[in-house]
Formats: sequence, C-alpha cells, structure tokens
Amino acid sequence: MKRLAILGSTGSIGQSTLSIVEQFPERYAVAALACGRNLNEAFVQAARWRPKVASMATEELADRLVARLRDAGVTGIEVVHGTQGTVACSTLPEADFVVSAIVGVAGLEATHAAILAGKPVGLANKECMVAAGEILTQAAHEHKVPILPIDSEHNAVHQCLRVGTHAEIKTIWLTASGGPFRQTPLEQFASITPEQALKHPTWVMGRRITIDSATMLNKGLEIIEACRLFDVRPSQVRVTVHPQSTVHSLVEYVDGSILAQISVTDMRLPILYALAYPERPASNLTFDLAALRHLDFEEPDFERFPCLRLAFEAAEKGGAHCIALNAADEVAVEAFLERRIPFTGIPRTIEEVLASTPEVHPATIAEVLATDQEARQSARALLT
Amino acid sequence: MKRLAILGSTGSIGQSTLSIVEQFPERYAVAALACGRNLNEAFVQAARWRPKVASMATEELADRLVARLRDAGVTGIEVVHGTQGTVACSTLPEADFVVSAIVGVAGLEATHAAILAGKPVGLANKECMVAAGEILTQAAHEHKVPILPIDSEHNAVHQCLRVGTHAEIKTIWLTASGGPFRQTPLEQFASITPEQALKHPTWVMGRRITIDSATMLNKGLEIIEACRLFDVRPSQVRVTVHPQSTVHSLVEYVDGSILAQISVTDMRLPILYALAYPERPASNLTFDLAALRHLDFEEPDFERFPCLRLAFEAAEKGGAHCIALNAADEVAVEAFLERRIPFTGIPRTIEEVLASTPEVHPATIAEVLATDQEARQSARALLT
Repeated sequence: MKRLAILGSTGSIGQSTLSIVEQFPERYAVAALACGRNLNEAFVQAARWRPKVASMATEELADRLVARLRDAGVTGIEVVHGTQGTVACSTLPEADFVVSAIVGVAGLEATHAAILAGKPVGLANKECMVAAGEILTQAAHEHKVPILPIDSEHNAVHQCLRVGTHAEIKTIWLTASGGPFRQTPLEQFASITPEQALKHPTWVMGRRITIDSATMLNKGLEIIEACRLFDVRPSQVRVTVHPQSTVHSLVEYVDGSILAQISVTDMRLPILYALAYPERPASNLTFDLAALRHLDFEEPDFERFPCLRLAFEAAEKGGAHCIALNAADEVAVEAFLERRIPFTGIPRTIEEVLASTPEVHPATIAEVLATDQEARQSARALLT
Repeated sequence: MKRLAILGSTGSIGQSTLSIVEQFPERYAVAALACGRNLNEAFVQAARWRPKVASMATEELADRLVARLRDAGVTGIEVVHGTQGTVACSTLPEADFVVSAIVGVAGLEATHAAILAGKPVGLANKECMVAAGEILTQAAHEHKVPILPIDSEHNAVHQCLRVGTHAEIKTIWLTASGGPFRQTPLEQFASITPEQALKHPTWVMGRRITIDSATMLNKGLEIIEACRLFDVRPSQVRVTVHPQSTVHSLVEYVDGSILAQISVTDMRLPILYALAYPERPASNLTFDLAALRHLDFEEPDFERFPCLRLAFEAAEKGGAHCIALNAADEVAVEAFLERRIPFTGIPRTIEEVLASTPEVHPATIAEVLATDQEARQSARALLT
C-alpha cells in the first residue's frame, strides 16, 4: 500500500490521481492533500479521502475548510495552509510517495522538501524542473530518490529509456501536437485571439498550458525538463510534430534503434505508471491499435514558433535563463489573455527578458525564487 | 571478444553477420562457418576470416574447398561436411555465440546441438522455432541459454519486452508489410504469377520467403515463432499491416502502454542487437526520424490472406500442425514457382495437408524431422 501526498489535488492532475486511487484501493491511499484555493473541491476531497493533513492556500481558506469539515462531522484531519502547509503535506512521515502537481513555481519548495525527506516524487509540474532542475536532480541523486515524470512526453521517454543505458542514448525525440496554429499562415499570427489559442486540438488542459501549446513554449519547457530529468545535452533533444498525439515520445539509441511509446491521450496512464513503477497494473486505459490508421510526423517550424528556438537557447545557457524563460512566458501569457499584447508579443517579451538576464546559476531554492521574481518584474516592466 | 559460429554464412543473413564482424573487429571474430553449397563464396569467406572449422553441404564440396584453400596457400582450417559438419560448427568449443541462419529445417539439428552445448543463439531461422519451438525453448530453459531473435519483428518485440514483465504483456503486435498484393482485388489472386509475387515492396530476401510474404504465410510463421520465443498464447499475438515497414513490431502492456521499435529496414541492425545484447554499440545504421512523414496501419484481410488464419489455427494446435504448416508451404511454394499450381493453390495445399495432420507433439528432433517429411510427402502427393 502506497500512501500518497498529492500536491495540487484539486487541479486536473490531482483529480486524475484521485481517480487512480479510487480504481486501485488495494494499492493506494491518500495521506495528504495540498488543495490551493478551491474550497468546495477541497472539502469534497477531504471528506471523501480522509487524509491525515489537508492544506489550503491561505489561513482564511484553511479556517473555512475546518468549519465545513466540522459541520459535516468529519474529524481527524489536520488543516494547514500556505507554503508551509504544502511542505507539511510533502514531508508528512506517513506519506510514501509525493505527486507534485501544483502549477508554476508555487510547488517548488514542497517538491524540494519531499526529495530532501527521501520521498519518491511523481512530477507533473514541469516548471519545477525548468526553474530548479539542477538543484532538484542533484538533491534526488544525493538522497537516492527517484523522480518519475508524469508529463505524457517524459513519461514516454522514461519508458523508452528502459531498453538501453544512458551512454547509449543518441536523441530524445519529444512529440508535439503542433497546437492549433500548426498550419496557420505566419502573417496571421499577430492577430490570433485568446479564444482561438485556447482551443487545443487534442488535450484539454489549463489556460496557461493551452496557450503555451499554441506558442510551443510548452514544448520548449519540456526540452529543458528532458535535459534535466534524463541528464542529456540540449543537442540530444529534438522535437517532432505529431498531430495525432498518439506517439507520446521516442528515444533513438546509438545502434540505430528507436523506441516509441503509444497510448491513449489520458493523463491517468502516466500517473498510474509513475505510482506503480516498476510495475504495470492492468487498467482500462487501452488504446485500440487495430483502429490506428495514420501517424504523421513533421519537422517543427522554428519561424512560426520562435519559442522553440528561445527554449533551446535557454537550455544551452541553463540556470537563470531557464527560470526567466518560464517566468517571462507566464507574465506574457497573462497579458495576452487580457488582450494587452498580441500572440506574437509572447515570444517577443520572452526574448527581451532573456536578453537582459545574467548567465548565473542559482544554487538554492530561495535564489531560484528571487531570480523568478526578477524575471517577472522585468517582463511586467516591458508590458506597461 | 565474442567468437562466432555462423550457420548459413554464405546466405544473406550470414553475409550481413560477417559485415558486422568486419565493422566491429574489436568485438567479434569468426570461429566457424557452415557454408552449404556456394563453393566460391565459401572459399572467399574461409580465406578472409580463417575460421577454425568450415563446413560444406557434401563431402565432394568439402574436398573441393580443401583443394582451393591449399592452392591459395591457406592453412589451418578444418573442413567438414553434412549435418554432422554443421553440428561440429555449432558446438565448436572455441565458439561463444552461434548465429543460426540456415534456411528451413536443415539448421534444426545444429541449432539444437548448440543449445545443448550451452551456447547463446542468435536465431534468424524461423522454421526452427516453428517446427521445434517446444523442444528448443525447453532445452534453452534447461541449459539457461538465451535465444536472441534476429528476425526484424521478433527482434523489435524483444526490445519492447524490456520495459515490462512477462505477466504484464497484453498483446504482441507483429507488423506486416502486407506484401505486393495488399491492394490486389481478391478475384485476381488466382492469376498471380511468380514474377509478380517475387517483387517485394520493402525487403530484398530469398525466393521462398518472398513468396511467403506475398501469401502472408511468412507472418503466420512469425505468429507461431512469437508464441514460442516469448511464451505467449496465440490469442496474445496480433498482426497489423504497416506498408512502410518502419515500425518493426509493438508490444501492448496491460496498463495500456504500447511500446514500438522503429529503425531502418536493414538486417544488420537486429544482427548487431543479438550479437551485442544487452549492449548497443554505436552503428551507422541510423534512421532519419526527421524525414519520417506518414506511418500507416491497417487490419490484415483474412479473406485475401487465408494463410494467416491457417497459421493461427496451427499455433493453437501446436506440435505437428506447426511443422506441417511450414513443410506443406515449402512444397507448395516450390510448385507455385514451377507454375504447377496457382497462387491460391498455396493456402489450399496447406489447408488440405493440415486437415490430415494428427494432433501430436513430437518430443525429439528426429520425430520433428520425420513429421516434417510426412507433411512434405502428403503435400507432394496432393500436387501430382
């Protein structure tokens, strides 16, 4: 029985994780839920799963959750709050495995703390690896803690890497759906609206990640994540546009063999893989290979999607440049969604912020967070 | 340094194996060459590679090879002949690894002897597994001898099986090019000529295997081979038609993940994999994934290709039925190439031979060979 601490339990990955716990009650239980701001969902989850600890974003929300649980006659749940509360969840002695699914750098401290506490981590939060990958992988190495990627691409890579050694890796090929603007003429990019960009062809996801898919910055973050997770150079990572999102990624070995992972586009599968690794429990998440007709692959267009180039450049420089890439994008996406900048303003903002970012390598989480704040400020300064 | 005994060294797989030895002189050397009937090629190979033993099909050919080597001033090679000669090669104490690449059941005794002598086998001969898979896998198990498939499909499966356990296998998907008649209207099958059938769209191979690809009996033999090599039931093996022959096969796991292996269509890759396993030496056999455009998959048409159905039925019955499937096909293909029967006569002959085959399970290689002879005779009797 694995007892889980789920960071970001009310989000999409968190809810999918709980549906896996529901399907495999003999394998998984809930030890802690870090819930954020969604009080209703937090109450439903806490009442249903009876974790030892539940955490809310603020003290006020925590008090309200306590009241609702008391009114419902639910006892025995310690309710905490803030970053400290999330860390209490991720380091809870009763938790055997931490699912890190808080979006953005907000989950960084708790994920780092989980690793320092020796807990295996299922990582769904790509910003953690992008902003602090050097620190997290070093800590994981020192504490002999496995980090299992829950991102569908990196999960696929993790699977494909089991058939060879690290020295035998030639290229990690991340597949990209190409987003909704794969075939949009370049001259129309400046007039793309938030409504158009929020329609993703294959995955239903949060707003920022959907826009990041449309700019392919999302794939750029994954390039950096792959370098850190699998200890490869940026030149060993390539992107292939695969509109069907059926092949989730591929690994090319030095002997010439390429291994690919194929499955349904359902996040429960990589979650189950990470939770059960190295086992593979039988699931109903089957892919109908007999119904497979065509798989298409094409090279990404770096002109349409300058964010890809920016990500490769940031990956080469590492450190502060990766942090700034992510931070500037988050600010720019917000501005785009608020119609303050055009779609093409997103890469432009990132590029300008990167141009003024020093080539330094933050050595602590505090330094990472400070660098993140600086990049956000310089992005905001550009956009006002 | 691995010293190889190559059974069938003058054939296509044998020559590809020697080209791998040439490319990796620090890894591989030649201990024995079982050459068959091609005296010129046998002489060139023996003079080049200086094996300890070389074997020819007959005593007369062996004498002629001795004479040619003597005239050329090549000394120190023991020349033997016949089945005993092949066995001498496959059991040579100086050999560390046996490549079994003699076409048909001719290589069966020597392959069995290699396993009994405790030598790892790279198996390129699918008839061995089809006719005597039960005996060979049992012997390999008892002598703890690995059998590494060199067939591109089974080699792909072997790679994909490294990311899960045996109990986690749901379905092994063998890809099939579909052969030259994938889209030929059913009513034209009776008038297909040997010339048409000998034109394979993706692989250049021997005559029988090319016809077997056109009838898809080849895929049928591979279904049986997969059952034996990987210890799965026929219902766990399925075929998907993939005209590009780029995905060499796939394994579907119970959790819903499917792993696929992709590479160039060059037999040197599976040969290198088998020789080097579990290592992957760097090779120049690279596949240009960036140039990949479309991969197509479709369900096989059991009406056009009745050999597939016959193979699944034989796989279910096992023993003599698998032997008879292969033997009857070999006789029928010969008759088709000599224009004595139509293309559609191949499955008809096999079906009739299978109908009169008893459900027995030969327990020794001698019994296998006797059953094989009986099936050939009953096929010949049908065709005269």
